[in-house]
Amino acid sequence: MKTAHPTARARLPRVTEMAHRLLAERITAGDTVVDATAGNGYDTLFLAGLVGETGRVYAYDIQEAAIRATAERLDAAGVRNRVILRHASHTAIAELRASLQAVVFNLGYLPGSDKGVITQADSTLQAVQASLERLAPGGMVLLVVYQGHAGGEQEAEALEAYTRKLSPRDYLVLKYEYINPDNRPPYILAIERK
Amino acid sequence: MKTAHPTARARLPRVTEMAHRLLAERITAGDTVVDATAGNGYDTLFLAGLVGETGRVYAYDIQEAAIRATAERLDAAGVRNRVILRHASHTAIAELRASLQAVVFNLGYLPGSDKGVITQADSTLQAVQASLERLAPGGMVLLVVYQGHAGGEQEAEALEAYTRKLSPRDYLVLKYEYINPDNRPPYILAIERK
Repeated sequence: MKTAHPTARARLPRVTEMAHRLLAERITAGDTVVDATAGNGYDTLFLAGLVGETGRVYAYDIQEAAIRATAERLDAAGVRNRVILRHASHTAIAELRASLQAVVFNLGYLPGSDKGVITQADSTLQAVQASLERLAPGGMVLLVVYQGHAGGEQEAEALEAYTRKLSPRDYLVLKYEYINPDNRPPYILAIERK
Repeated sequence: MKTAHPTARARLPRVTEMAHRLLAERITAGDTVVDATAGNGYDTLFLAGLVGETGRVYAYDIQEAAIRATAERLDAAGVRNRVILRHASHTAIAELRASLQAVVFNLGYLPGSDKGVITQADSTLQAVQASLERLAPGGMVLLVVYQGHAGGEQEAEALEAYTRKLSPRDYLVLKYEYINPDNRPPYILAIERK
């Protein structure tokens, strides 16, 4: 039978939707995960939902405004106690002793804030490397890479060069990208530890 | 609660799995779809399942052995009547008058057969263009692109150049690719008509 609502059919999953799907498939209750770039806290809240009451989310941001916004969002949802908020660069992931199921990076600048404060290629690469070293078997580092802002292109190139060289015996690197854009939309790099 | 079977967690969807997911999300009972490269008939059978008893699958292959294998597979599953098998190049899609919900291309050569008979950049581009012209709004052309065989690389480059230029007002083009392989694995180009 022909459906009565052809417009309700699924579209190709957009980048943000796909990122959330990949996280939801990978993370279960009790997991320890990281939001490397808390930003306005939407992903932190999403992760807190996935890890449940027994799980733990570490969330980092170098901007006080981001930490405040994230804390408020978590309080409002009643899941503040699942999250350890750190006003620090994501390079502080190197201090974690936990085995991580997932680490999420939303690169670029904080929406609605100072566009001069952006993630940088060097520190991002350090944070990604620290994340990979703490990743549990079967765990995933998920990067949403923005290129539209100043410095974004260099960061994207550095990340792609780094991830392309990861040993296929130890990691699988997926690139999920819309290739005929009219602007420079974000794309996904997802690294799975075997 | 920590899961007892961490190895049972979802992995990143491999290329074939992702291709089937995208088709399953897009196609519903009653649809008209095309398998541009029937090959051994696995995708034809998968499509016949998705379109149901009231739907229709057009399946093309230039090799007699592929048509035979596909017919046998469809007979065994009792869905032969949903499929119109054509012993012809996929450029014959240009003769179709139907409005298509999806068109699938598995490029390269027929597994287990003559590796000298491969899809060619020119005819593949013609067939893709004919498919796009017959695509219903919200429809999708899904290409699984193989580069490992002789001629595969040229075909892949031609397809990517063509799809990158498709107007973003009319189409979205997704590339789904593992970028740190130890060989040259297939990747997906999925074109969604808006």
